[in-house]
Amino acid sequence: MPAADAAVKADDMADALERLRVQTPLVHCLTNVVVAGFTANALLAAGAAPAMADAVEDADVLARAAGGVLVNIGTVTAASADGMRAAVVAVGDAGGRWVLDPVAAGALPWRAALAAELTELYPPAVVRGNASEVLALTGELGGRGVDASAGPDDAAAAATAIAGRFGATVAVSGAVDLITDGERIVRVENGHPLMTKVTGVGCVLGALAAGFLAVVDDPLLATVTATVFLTLAAEDAVARADKPGSFAVGLIDELATVDGDRIRTGARLR
Amino acid sequence: MPAADAAVKADDMADALERLRVQTPLVHCLTNVVVAGFTANALLAAGAAPAMADAVEDADVLARAAGGVLVNIGTVTAASADGMRAAVVAVGDAGGRWVLDPVAAGALPWRAALAAELTELYPPAVVRGNASEVLALTGELGGRGVDASAGPDDAAAAATAIAGRFGATVAVSGAVDLITDGERIVRVENGHPLMTKVTGVGCVLGALAAGFLAVVDDPLLATVTATVFLTLAAEDAVARADKPGSFAVGLIDELATVDGDRIRTGARLR
Amino acid sequence: MPAADAAVKADDMADALERLRVQTPLVHCLTNVVVAGFTANALLAAGAAPAMADAVEDADVLARAAGGVLVNIGTVTAASADGMRAAVVAVGDAGGRWVLDPVAAGALPWRAALAAELTELYPPAVVRGNASEVLALTGELGGRGVDASAGPDDAAAAATAIAGRFGATVAVSGAVDLITDGERIVRVENGHPLMTKVTGVGCVLGALAAGFLAVVDDPLLATVTATVFLTLAAEDAVARADKPGSFAVGLIDELATVDGDRIRTGARLR
Repeated sequence: MPAADAAVKADDMADALERLRVQTPLVHCLTNVVVAGFTANALLAAGAAPAMADAVEDADVLARAAGGVLVNIGTVTAASADGMRAAVVAVGDAGGRWVLDPVAAGALPWRAALAAELTELYPPAVVRGNASEVLALTGELGGRGVDASAGPDDAAAAATAIAGRFGATVAVSGAVDLITDGERIVRVENGHPLMTKVTGVGCVLGALAAGFLAVVDDPLLATVTATVFLTLAAEDAVARADKPGSFAVGLIDELATVDGDRIRTGARLR
Repeated sequence: MPAADAAVKADDMADALERLRVQTPLVHCLTNVVVAGFTANALLAAGAAPAMADAVEDADVLARAAGGVLVNIGTVTAASADGMRAAVVAVGDAGGRWVLDPVAAGALPWRAALAAELTELYPPAVVRGNASEVLALTGELGGRGVDASAGPDDAAAAATAIAGRFGATVAVSGAVDLITDGERIVRVENGHPLMTKVTGVGCVLGALAAGFLAVVDDPLLATVTATVFLTLAAEDAVARADKPGSFAVGLIDELATVDGDRIRTGARLR
Repeated sequence: MPAADAAVKADDMADALERLRVQTPLVHCLTNVVVAGFTANALLAAGAAPAMADAVEDADVLARAAGGVLVNIGTVTAASADGMRAAVVAVGDAGGRWVLDPVAAGALPWRAALAAELTELYPPAVVRGNASEVLALTGELGGRGVDASAGPDDAAAAATAIAGRFGATVAVSGAVDLITDGERIVRVENGHPLMTKVTGVGCVLGALAAGFLAVVDDPLLATVTATVFLTLAAEDAVARADKPGSFAVGLIDELATVDGDRIRTGARLR
């Protein structure tokens, strides 16, 4: 894996995880109601300190105080969209960094427009989505259906374009995760199909990326670390329980267990 | 069980479950925030593809794209009620089908009025509730307390009346579930009392009914299948773990495990 | 433990738990979306009947019908704040009792102002928070950061002052929980650090306090019972599973298991 080693080193990922656990950064999540509890528990297990709130009245204070901010539009409403706008503006004012998870933007025009608007208020440091969601941010796929059938490699060109436009790291989730900052491309081969049978695993990835943004400078390193950390936890969880209910519980357990050595020996980058 | 066999055949239920898993229909859930995650995980485990969103801006697109739509008013607000109205209208325009779960309509006048309004916009294919909730839809029980002490058999007459008024299948949950389309009546004797000690099990039933509506024509068959499938999963889960936390996890596991053979051998209809 | 025995007797706590399970009181929770499901499951496991709703249209009816009301501002919005105001007014009109959990009021000015406003509409019977949240209610800590580094003993003076101002019982959560009604002070030494690695455990404490308010007269007894009950369940859960995902599941299991004998033998009051 020499090319991948050149982009992201396992030792750097292991160090990032250690820093997360020592620094316990505040991660402000404006996320969807389906996964809010699961996301908070994942962040706590990993070692971060979640703050879950999307009221416009709180957004400015929390976004400035946080080491990283997640905006996930999975159940966004007119009211929570205002909180998202305020949070993104506050991140920009404070020189902070935020992660955009444009859930279902590939299928829902209002969300696609909102995601575009948020990126114009202040560009995200990381965009995390499946292929159709990332493709939607190029503005070229308005009428697309709900299906997310485009694979991550189909989206590689779009990801690179988006990365260039925003100066962002773009993570396209799939059987193999693709992460690029426009210049470097890393593929993460860890993970398990059961991750798609539990709601919110992708959302947790966005939250973890926001957490690692708080403790490392390089957004590509932060995002690859989040991906490797989560997918290794999933591999360990599925080894203990291969049904979705037990797997979801085990995933939280393993997020509290995976350490630097596990990353060094287990990461499969390409 | 000859009478029940006449109304709903075990082979047809087994076929419906297989179709759900092959077709993975999109199920659009406008549901309460307490159970949103649990419901999404139940649908994923069963084999369907949940979309959880209640913003009015998204409702039209999602309701038209979905194979089945669930409207559960358990934590409805003025804002999410607008999403529900838009979704029901979209279902009507698209010739789709939706499930109404009138949570606590028996106790809360605003919800009872909302449930009635939704049924007037476009009649539901299925109504799922406990006895007092179904009774509330008859409009004859305005001042009723929060207790759901009316049993499912007390509600049989009301269920038949509601079924006739809407041309709907009505499922009254209880120790024995009663399901009727106004002409046929099926009682499902599967299940376990622990189902009442985990929040959202009834809500999951409504969501599963919406899922089966996407893959079978007959709403009675869809609703009985959902009930048998869920109650068998509960029986299998309680056999492994008889405390509510572990049971809830096991229920999701078993929703991924119960298959056509389990339905054929385990269904207890009357 | 003679001093503590003087304030709260183990037999009285055991009796309170038995009453909770016999009476299954309705507990109306206006709480945050992150923990709504976990809280409902905790109340169900304990033996109470949760009603989770924060629409202003429902608040009056539910607050009057409930044996205890919880207001937790963890994800409060302009819309749900109106529901909280209506619920508190209804509790006052009906002569009921409510629990305030001022989540993050120590860091967020809008929430601090809302908490103060709610206490002016009708004083809470119980205030539950960590040290910085309780300190915020004294109005002397406006600009405080998000960290909750103030320990419970730092907050003892503030807790006593708040208790006196509202005529309330104040519970300050920490490694040792401090509970006071302004005259009596009880410290609960039960519990485990893993409780801080699962989201919503503190929120569940507020909900349980509301539940016990429904079955015992003395708010101090209700709050100490809730604390002992929850922390014993945590001790028993961690003995079976010491990772956060499994621990959260086990905590719900143990809330259905801890009984009066466990309280009599396990409570460590000071």
